Amino acid sequence: MAYDFPDLNRLIAPQSVAVIGASDRAHSVGCEALINLSQHSDFTGEIYPVNPKRDTIMGLKAYPNMASLPDGGVDVAMVCVPADRVLGALRDAADVGTRFAVVFTSGFAETGEEGKLIEAEMQVIARATGMRIYGPNVPGLSNINRRIGLTFSPVFKDDKMGGKIGLVTQGGGLGRSFIQASERNIGIGLWASTGNEADLQLGDFIHHMAHDPDISVIAVLAESLRDGPRFLTAAQAAAKAGKPIIAMKVGQSEYGVKATQSHTAAMAGSAAVTSALFRQHGIVEVNDIDELIDTAALFARAGIRKRKGICVYSFSGGTGALAADMVGSAGLTLAEFAPETVAALKNIAPSYAAVDNPVDLTTAVFTIKDMNRNCLELAAKDPDTDIVLLPTPANYGGITDLAAADVIALAGGDTLFVPVWMAGYDAKGYTALNEAGINPFHSLGKAAKAMKRLIWRGNWQAGDAPDAHPASALPEGALDEAAAKTFLAKAGIPTPRGDVATGASEAATLANSLGYPVVLKALVPGLLHKTEAGGVAIGLADAAAVRAAWGAMEATLAAQDITLKRGLVEQMVTQSGTECVIGLHDDPAFGMVLSFGLGGIFVEAIGDVTYRSVPIGPAEAARMIDDIRGHALLGPLRGRKGVDKAALADVLVAVSKLGVPGRIAELDLNPVLAGPDGVIALDALIVRTENDK
Amino acid sequence: MAYDFPDLNRLIAPQSVAVIGASDRAHSVGCEALINLSQHSDFTGEIYPVNPKRDTIMGLKAYPNMASLPDGGVDVAMVCVPADRVLGALRDAADVGTRFAVVFTSGFAETGEEGKLIEAEMQVIARATGMRIYGPNVPGLSNINRRIGLTFSPVFKDDKMGGKIGLVTQGGGLGRSFIQASERNIGIGLWASTGNEADLQLGDFIHHMAHDPDISVIAVLAESLRDGPRFLTAAQAAAKAGKPIIAMKVGQSEYGVKATQSHTAAMAGSAAVTSALFRQHGIVEVNDIDELIDTAALFARAGIRKRKGICVYSFSGGTGALAADMVGSAGLTLAEFAPETVAALKNIAPSYAAVDNPVDLTTAVFTIKDMNRNCLELAAKDPDTDIVLLPTPANYGGITDLAAADVIALAGGDTLFVPVWMAGYDAKGYTALNEAGINPFHSLGKAAKAMKRLIWRGNWQAGDAPDAHPASALPEGALDEAAAKTFLAKAGIPTPRGDVATGASEAATLANSLGYPVVLKALVPGLLHKTEAGGVAIGLADAAAVRAAWGAMEATLAAQDITLKRGLVEQMVTQSGTECVIGLHDDPAFGMVLSFGLGGIFVEAIGDVTYRSVPIGPAEAARMIDDIRGHALLGPLRGRKGVDKAALADVLVAVSKLGVPGRIAELDLNPVLAGPDGVIALDALIVRTENDK
Repeated sequence: MAYDFPDLNRLIAPQSVAVIGASDRAHSVGCEALINLSQHSDFTGEIYPVNPKRDTIMGLKAYPNMASLPDGGVDVAMVCVPADRVLGALRDAADVGTRFAVVFTSGFAETGEEGKLIEAEMQVIARATGMRIYGPNVPGLSNINRRIGLTFSPVFKDDKMGGKIGLVTQGGGLGRSFIQASERNIGIGLWASTGNEADLQLGDFIHHMAHDPDISVIAVLAESLRDGPRFLTAAQAAAKAGKPIIAMKVGQSEYGVKATQSHTAAMAGSAAVTSALFRQHGIVEVNDIDELIDTAALFARAGIRKRKGICVYSFSGGTGALAADMVGSAGLTLAEFAPETVAALKNIAPSYAAVDNPVDLTTAVFTIKDMNRNCLELAAKDPDTDIVLLPTPANYGGITDLAAADVIALAGGDTLFVPVWMAGYDAKGYTALNEAGINPFHSLGKAAKAMKRLIWRGNWQAGDAPDAHPASALPEGALDEAAAKTFLAKAGIPTPRGDVATGASEAATLANSLGYPVVLKALVPGLLHKTEAGGVAIGLADAAAVRAAWGAMEATLAAQDITLKRGLVEQMVTQSGTECVIGLHDDPAFGMVLSFGLGGIFVEAIGDVTYRSVPIGPAEAARMIDDIRGHALLGPLRGRKGVDKAALADVLVAVSKLGVPGRIAELDLNPVLAGPDGVIALDALIVRTENDK
Repeated sequence: MAYDFPDLNRLIAPQSVAVIGASDRAHSVGCEALINLSQHSDFTGEIYPVNPKRDTIMGLKAYPNMASLPDGGVDVAMVCVPADRVLGALRDAADVGTRFAVVFTSGFAETGEEGKLIEAEMQVIARATGMRIYGPNVPGLSNINRRIGLTFSPVFKDDKMGGKIGLVTQGGGLGRSFIQASERNIGIGLWASTGNEADLQLGDFIHHMAHDPDISVIAVLAESLRDGPRFLTAAQAAAKAGKPIIAMKVGQSEYGVKATQSHTAAMAGSAAVTSALFRQHGIVEVNDIDELIDTAALFARAGIRKRKGICVYSFSGGTGALAADMVGSAGLTLAEFAPETVAALKNIAPSYAAVDNPVDLTTAVFTIKDMNRNCLELAAKDPDTDIVLLPTPANYGGITDLAAADVIALAGGDTLFVPVWMAGYDAKGYTALNEAGINPFHSLGKAAKAMKRLIWRGNWQAGDAPDAHPASALPEGALDEAAAKTFLAKAGIPTPRGDVATGASEAATLANSLGYPVVLKALVPGLLHKTEAGGVAIGLADAAAVRAAWGAMEATLAAQDITLKRGLVEQMVTQSGTECVIGLHDDPAFGMVLSFGLGGIFVEAIGDVTYRSVPIGPAEAARMIDDIRGHALLGPLRGRKGVDKAALADVLVAVSKLGVPGRIAELDLNPVLAGPDGVIALDALIVRTENDK
């Protein structure tokens, strides 16, 4: 789907700004916003305070209303008026051709139905006039790189650092947490906090940052995704621009979903769907604020590429062993040193040091001059080493400072240094590393997770698209199992051969032409649990058995006041295989979403399903299959042949192509039998959307 | 098993100490050790420098050897001599009746076979003389509470804080990392670093701390468990004394196992076994050094008891939502505020604040005086609130400092406050909380994990023991399936009725008396994979079928040069049920260990097994069953009845009683069929230990 993303350049770096509700009353929104722009920003454009009661404010000429501005519309109008006057202010701004409005005011959708209606009215204004609205309920927008603050935050004056990280959040508090990482010299260049998203959303700012040359890594903190497909499209633009997205999504648990809804009044999607779709689109998902910050900082200094091994480098044997352990637990690979590396290290290090990976130089570093730097250089230059993990268990003063200096001196080459400072942040070496932009992690486990994410993103490739045949429309009339299977078969999804009979004799004739054994399934509108109702007979070996089964089924259903008028007669599938489930659902966050999992009682107890946005091509389908935890069950096992994964992938691609918005509300193929010789959907349910005729 | 733990009081707080190899050569071990004891310790006992070349050292009278000491043996001899003179020094010390020797010197087991032999000799000296040896390859022992340093660490002089946490590590570097947490006012009272453990081990110090009145929480960092049962017995003593153990075990991955082995020359056990046995014995396992420190600190200020709900308290809606989300993701429960709590909060907080849990006071805290303290007090006093989680996303200066002061003012009651400082550690509020001993966590996720562990430990109860029948000895002779099953049946483990036949006719007669259908299994020494070899026939419905099966089996085996002399004829079990596996193995770390898991192909792919030290009683067996991830498969599912868990627990108890050391090397019941009407072991393999006749 194509999205029409707005050009936000005149919002991010405006040339003229009006402050509607400007004031010099200390601590008021209209005062703080004006101060931030006029005093704490390097803003050279025009500033127009709008306040009908004043002639000047803070030495700037004030205007009674937007219509009185000398040049008509402005790039940005900051709306600082109380909630009941916001719509009026927006209309005034739009009327004179203002490009963007920033609405700080809160008290809208987050307070209830009435507020939601006002936000709907804001959308109407935006659509009708073309003036885009940022907010309401936002602390503002901080362009730290260009030092322009469209914000009433009283701490904006301290946000001076700038940097390559673009930050997109919804709420303000957690965004501020990230911004304060500048204390550790982690630089954020642009921070958008989208609040209630009456108009502009997370995705719009991600899309902007994908094209902003000052931004190289995009950090996202999402409480809810108002428009998932738009978000993913923006993410695709970022991926195409080679800019990784590090994202955290609140709403992993019921508590989080509930708290987020009451906090932002937005609908939360399922965490499992979100995680799977993030993976699909190369979005690096993290699970905590500190991970968001530290991972973004790591990505900001590391290139996105395929990587080889990790060298663990320390002068404490126990620490090196622990670090190697963490590397292994994270599923990462230690570098295998070349013989030359080992030989060169042995030349320098004492005999009792460990010069294989993990390297443990022992306390000899305290006494042998330059040994640490020389050995570190050798380890970093090893051909299989791509990352050097440097855990510092404790601050030993001088030697710890020196070791940090060695890292700083050798950094900047192809090999990435990842220091971990495990104690005492009030240490020279720690500060020096931060000042050099080589931010140490604070725990080994978090460093291992971040490296894992970096390596994962380096290996990730954008998914392929299916070939271009558009999906056929659903057939008219009732979509019972027979109709659904006919439709699916035409769409390239194998189903058992079969047809509809309207009586016992017709069923028998049909069975004769299909060949035995056959299955008979009742086709009764609204009867979902056929088996439980006695509406399924399997293993029917001849015509007599088919007739008898029809009669018995008719009687059983009649006892439940159900009339058997039509039955589906199908060839019985006797091949062995693994039961899978494949489906489509209309996700509240992401629209049509494809699901795949293992079927049967075990998986029902364990819950092992993965998801994709649609459509997907065969390569992405293959990754989807390998994504489930129990994927080993589809491979060869205990001498049993593995399933035909190519055929399974073909079915996933075919189903994904059916996921056209507005047609199917739900599609369930359960079970799909996947075997070594093919894949076949044994049962099928399709529910059309209410919009679809 | 009963262990004879040594009384370590005279090691921890000696009255007389000799320093063998004392020196005044700067930076030498013998110099640093003497300085630490004579200058940096509050040690009032006798100090005897031992050095044949000197009359006095640092103003203290020196002695040429241990025999020349005025009062014969001392409480502790610190051995500071080179590796080749250590054995001699130990013998000299033991000869005069020294109680304990601390061996700092390295270069023993960690360097190879020769070093291992020397350590074996140290053990011989310890056993023969009763002088217990601490080390070798240790930085020393720090009794920080009483300020006695038996250590050559040059930074001991700074270890002044003391506290209720006892720390037991093997290596020194990671222990030092923990000690430096004193920068955040986290106090360690006693630190033992056991090094190569030629004699004294982790367990000995845990046992000491269990009885040390100055210690209330024991933190353990284990690279390897030299004697797992001893460790667990010490842990039981700590649990009995009401002192929680927080433990981290290196060796979760192959890399960690390998690196630890080369670093300490000790054998590492399986991580899955370790984790399960830790859980069984109430040991709180953590996964990183920062978790070890912060969790120990939390336990040191929190009581071990059952707890009710968690209140999330903040003045940032997004942060509160995230914290609530993390509480939910960790499987914890938010407190349900009493109506009175909500009403009282509403009285104070503004209308737009959230006063249900999570509490979000919004930025109103900046303006309404005392609101934060009053609301926090109300939340803390809510009857369902047991813990208040206080996430601070950013440092806002004054209000953040005030909020910290409010926490400090209200702490100390029944409700536990858990602050999380998410940004800027260079902040007044952060420092104030640390100074008050209410150490903030640094990430929400880690705080949630720590609370989860605290609540888990509060709910944990020591396992029960089985009734006292001792296990019968294994029968003489070959332990084929028939003999194994007979033995198991006598031990109370249900097996199918059956007996041994030596020919087709005897098999048929036997089958007639058992009733049909029956199973025939070849009993051939050394034939493990009976089914694959054609040595199993099932579903034999009458005598003719039995005779035919015998003949066919005889021929099939003969074609593989195997003679069928004996066959097991059994009633065929036709009941349905879930396949389980139950086993015993001789674990390198823990000795006899009981295992339980689900059987079948699914579980083989997923690997879902849990473990227990033996023996266990029925309550612990029930917990073991619930411990596996797929335990829902044993309950009622899809209308199927659940398995008879009491019968399954009985089998686990019976098997656990067979785990007597030195008898069984391996026992495998695979599958055990567990159904609603009972549990039966369908196949059995017992391998006796080489020691057992």
